[in-house]
Amino acid sequence: MKKVAIIMGSTSDLPVMQDAIDILREFKIPLEVDVVSAHRTPEKMVEFGSKAHKNGIGVIIAGAGGAAHLPGMVASLSPLPVIGVPVKSSNSIDGWDSVLSILQMPGGVPVATVALNGAKNAGILAAQILGAQNDEVINRIIAYKEGLKQKVIKAAEEMKKNV
Amino acid sequence: MKKVAIIMGSTSDLPVMQDAIDILREFKIPLEVDVVSAHRTPEKMVEFGSKAHKNGIGVIIAGAGGAAHLPGMVASLSPLPVIGVPVKSSNSIDGWDSVLSILQMPGGVPVATVALNGAKNAGILAAQILGAQNDEVINRIIAYKEGLKQKVIKAAEEMKKNV
Amino acid sequence: MKKVAIIMGSTSDLPVMQDAIDILREFKIPLEVDVVSAHRTPEKMVEFGSKAHKNGIGVIIAGAGGAAHLPGMVASLSPLPVIGVPVKSSNSIDGWDSVLSILQMPGGVPVATVALNGAKNAGILAAQILGAQNDEVINRIIAYKEGLKQKVIKAAEEMKKNV
Amino acid sequence: MKKVAIIMGSTSDLPVMQDAIDILREFKIPLEVDVVSAHRTPEKMVEFGSKAHKNGIGVIIAGAGGAAHLPGMVASLSPLPVIGVPVKSSNSIDGWDSVLSILQMPGGVPVATVALNGAKNAGILAAQILGAQNDEVINRIIAYKEGLKQKVIKAAEEMKKNV
Amino acid sequence: MKKVAIIMGSTSDLPVMQDAIDILREFKIPLEVDVVSAHRTPEKMVEFGSKAHKNGIGVIIAGAGGAAHLPGMVASLSPLPVIGVPVKSSNSIDGWDSVLSILQMPGGVPVATVALNGAKNAGILAAQILGAQNDEVINRIIAYKEGLKQKVIKAAEEMKKNV
Amino acid sequence: MKKVAIIMGSTSDLPVMQDAIDILREFKIPLEVDVVSAHRTPEKMVEFGSKAHKNGIGVIIAGAGGAAHLPGMVASLSPLPVIGVPVKSSNSIDGWDSVLSILQMPGGVPVATVALNGAKNAGILAAQILGAQNDEVINRIIAYKEGLKQKVIKAAEEMKKNV
Amino acid sequence: MKKVAIIMGSTSDLPVMQDAIDILREFKIPLEVDVVSAHRTPEKMVEFGSKAHKNGIGVIIAGAGGAAHLPGMVASLSPLPVIGVPVKSSNSIDGWDSVLSILQMPGGVPVATVALNGAKNAGILAAQILGAQNDEVINRIIAYKEGLKQKVIKAAEEMKKNV
Amino acid sequence: MKKVAIIMGSTSDLPVMQDAIDILREFKIPLEVDVVSAHRTPEKMVEFGSKAHKNGIGVIIAGAGGAAHLPGMVASLSPLPVIGVPVKSSNSIDGWDSVLSILQMPGGVPVATVALNGAKNAGILAAQILGAQNDEVINRIIAYKEGLKQKVIKAAEEMKKNV
Repeated sequence: MKKVAIIMGSTSDLPVMQDAIDILREFKIPLEVDVVSAHRTPEKMVEFGSKAHKNGIGVIIAGAGGAAHLPGMVASLSPLPVIGVPVKSSNSIDGWDSVLSILQMPGGVPVATVALNGAKNAGILAAQILGAQNDEVINRIIAYKEGLKQKVIKAAEEMKKNV
Repeated sequence: MKKVAIIMGSTSDLPVMQDAIDILREFKIPLEVDVVSAHRTPEKMVEFGSKAHKNGIGVIIAGAGGAAHLPGMVASLSPLPVIGVPVKSSNSIDGWDSVLSILQMPGGVPVATVALNGAKNAGILAAQILGAQNDEVINRIIAYKEGLKQKVIKAAEEMKKNV
Repeated sequence: MKKVAIIMGSTSDLPVMQDAIDILREFKIPLEVDVVSAHRTPEKMVEFGSKAHKNGIGVIIAGAGGAAHLPGMVASLSPLPVIGVPVKSSNSIDGWDSVLSILQMPGGVPVATVALNGAKNAGILAAQILGAQNDEVINRIIAYKEGLKQKVIKAAEEMKKNV
Repeated sequence: MKKVAIIMGSTSDLPVMQDAIDILREFKIPLEVDVVSAHRTPEKMVEFGSKAHKNGIGVIIAGAGGAAHLPGMVASLSPLPVIGVPVKSSNSIDGWDSVLSILQMPGGVPVATVALNGAKNAGILAAQILGAQNDEVINRIIAYKEGLKQKVIKAAEEMKKNV
Repeated sequence: MKKVAIIMGSTSDLPVMQDAIDILREFKIPLEVDVVSAHRTPEKMVEFGSKAHKNGIGVIIAGAGGAAHLPGMVASLSPLPVIGVPVKSSNSIDGWDSVLSILQMPGGVPVATVALNGAKNAGILAAQILGAQNDEVINRIIAYKEGLKQKVIKAAEEMKKNV
Repeated sequence: MKKVAIIMGSTSDLPVMQDAIDILREFKIPLEVDVVSAHRTPEKMVEFGSKAHKNGIGVIIAGAGGAAHLPGMVASLSPLPVIGVPVKSSNSIDGWDSVLSILQMPGGVPVATVALNGAKNAGILAAQILGAQNDEVINRIIAYKEGLKQKVIKAAEEMKKNV
Repeated sequence: MKKVAIIMGSTSDLPVMQDAIDILREFKIPLEVDVVSAHRTPEKMVEFGSKAHKNGIGVIIAGAGGAAHLPGMVASLSPLPVIGVPVKSSNSIDGWDSVLSILQMPGGVPVATVALNGAKNAGILAAQILGAQNDEVINRIIAYKEGLKQKVIKAAEEMKKNV
Repeated sequence: MKKVAIIMGSTSDLPVMQDAIDILREFKIPLEVDVVSAHRTPEKMVEFGSKAHKNGIGVIIAGAGGAAHLPGMVASLSPLPVIGVPVKSSNSIDGWDSVLSILQMPGGVPVATVALNGAKNAGILAAQILGAQNDEVINRIIAYKEGLKQKVIKAAEEMKKNV
């Protein structure tokens, strides 16, 4: 199976992006992690983006905050599907800048955007993408969703006793 | 190759969603189209969402406007990757409602959201997802991007003569 | 008298939704409480929504945050009046996503939306709805409002002594 | 059966509010219509609001735009359920003022808010409220929803032939 | 000289509104303070608003938060100039609801709106209004502004030593 | 009686500001009109602002759009009450820039802000300010409001015949 | 004197960006114009950005809309001052995405952002930057501003005759 | 080399503006610092703005919050390039007022706006402006950017060991 590459604009994004790492490990999907800054290491970004599909990578998850150009620029450089995670960083205006500068890509260059700080969902989406033509991964997703459901049902029962 | 299902909340979303159909046909990706309303045909939505992965579908594109629940609900019902297209419908507040009610999904249930009215990018993303482990599709994406580049370069040459 | 059903997308919404429970108990309106997640337990939601009017329920209060689909989906499934409570959950963008994804329902499927975190008002509204054709409940509402007024008048007198 | 009172802040709101009138007539719910301006006829508003429950009215629908105080003030004056319709009037900032000044009522005084310009849903909600304890009205709602569903299903069939 | 009436929707607005009281006392303008809730004590509001100009009051300052109807309703009831203070109360969406529901009054019924939580400026504006035809008050305003200027100039000198 | 000065940042603001001129003429309040641009004629603005109170002016109405600095700067230069009219000019972002750059003045320097494009209300407010200690002007305001009320009542009667 | 480079993400940005060209020609500042798309021609962008300071360019003006990455990416690649023009393109959400994705750059990589569609000001700013150490250019700016002032003063005189 | 003048509307802006001072000292650019309040010391502002270009100053950095008029007014008064820093002060609505009242300047009077609280970038931009025609300063910028890059690369290596 191809790998998921998880990149982020700054090490300060790691606490948010860790959720993507954790869920992918739970799904036993191979992954690699790096810091690639669109604005501080543009050459590394070009190198990474233009070669990712030749390096065993099947999906890219990119997280960034503020004027968040990393996901869109990597989507511009790579033919692979790119998932963007808007990070509510300290230099963000309530997260709106992160969301809009990742989501509003022009025609021709999509970024699959998830919720603000939604790195966990980025990881699940990456698994779904790798599994889109792979029934075994789809079954892991089905089992995961069944687990979510059971947790909610149990929590509901617990709550009803105490309300 | 698995199919892309393109669904929308109302026939009034078709002018926007047509871009997804057109680009997928350009990429020669098999597809099917339907109207599935979360709020008017909830049973059809449940039926569609819970069976899609058994019906030869690999990716779902769902477009809706206003309080746009279709993409998220289908993502809840299906293990497949779901791409959401926020439509700026007539009953929308400048598109913010469409964007936020598709993007801001809770942990566990991702929707790969594209730009407001970004159905073309939804189609490209669907092709990338089907191609994530398929080098031939990736090559079509690379060729498509090369075409975009050449168009911009030609337009730039033209413009520089006239400015 | 029919019951009020109070449902919420997650047990983490309970601190907000408790206000609805408390005020309905104060009004001596029969109620039931459950966790029903649109995205994690969609089958339970369909079951609940399509049968509520046959189970002695007269009004449904549904609270959810972020891309909050529960109130609108239940309104789609049930002929009963549905009151939506936008919850400012931790994964919300300042509450705007919760508000817009509950409020902006398409024509044909209303959700009676109250203020962000306004569960107390949801409870009062449910009482008013059950009382719309029942003079005794209306009298309890009148008495409740008289109580609010007296509290304000007393607080005003107190404040004027100290300013 | 009690009546629905439909009031609006200005005759210029009528094109929006007509949808509420039409749908209630379709449901054969008795109604009355008036212009009551919170800011230009405050005495009429007080008179209307404080007596509505004694005049055979069971639900009030109030539409207004800009700094829209009519729904909230009537809710303050009456023990009846009040449905607020934010109108996107010409003096509104994209409708945000109308929405927020109707929705964000303080604890104790709910307004059941519907979508921007959502007068049709206000009418349906009023019918649901009058029907909350009345099975015949609920059956009309069920039939109405069935009609919506059939329309969508037919439109979907039509569309699939032409795409 | 006529008095300034300072009213607020709830005693919880007092910490904000105290600034208006303090600055008016500094200007030696006579004042009175009360809690008048548009939504909990509408009759008191009507009584207050319709009689203020007969009770020795020349200007009204009204502060409220959320769906803040008090300033606009009092402006509707009184011929006097009304100054509105949007309060960022706990039930407010970042203050936008307070601001828009006070500012966006329809033609014919102005509210002189100041900044979010800007009660101090409301007090100064009330003094300016009472002084619009009174040179002595104008001179107090001139002196006050001179004081502000001197404070800034001194602070600047201090800062330049330490930077 | 002192005069009202109506100034605007550009002649392109005149169509909006004309409403202030018209209503003040209707109230027979003396007025003068000028174009004073904070950004293009700062010296004229300083001259105007620092001398207005010596030139028979009692109230200043200032209208501007975009980064609208004129009202606040004149408020900084003059001891007189300044009414700000946010103009939705062509270079404005939906009017938000005009509103916020006029409304959000710092402590010490109030601007009495009216609704977006609310020049009519600025005129009425100016009349109320000049009348705050003048019973005859107050009576004109009372008569004006009575006229508004009668117009609404007549329009309501007319509408009720046709609905 | 060094040149100003004016680049834009698409030829569709030219109607907005033409204002920068025109004003720089009026100031007799040498310039060059090109289309450089961050997302469609990333290699051309890297080439342009990393060599501009060696090619006789002193200032870069970059205009783009939607998720507008061009200005920030060029600022990342070049040591020169970069002026960003947010363009309100057809795929933009009221311009907010363009503004925020240009303005909110992280520490270390500034973009000098001007108003939405503010290409004229970008041109003036470029002239000021080239003139920051050049008295002759400063004198041209002074003369330009004097011209603006005279135009406003004349327009004011004209208007005062007709109001 | 000409100096950079750093001014701010209040000493409370210093913690934010200090970043501009520090980075300019790091770049060994001569600077001066002052508090100049548009609203409290307008005469000082006029004096400063109209004479800056005669006092050895080449670039002005102006920081302010709320209805932030200082940057735009100084740009109106001076032919020099002015950099505006929107400060998220305590009286600001999430920073939107500061941003919009600095950014949205009318045609003819640009302010080079940086991110909310982006004083560090204002300092870097000032250095770039002074260096636009000065290769030595450009080399310092190049070295600074190289330093940023190395820091990111080192942090990335460190992180990859621990993830």
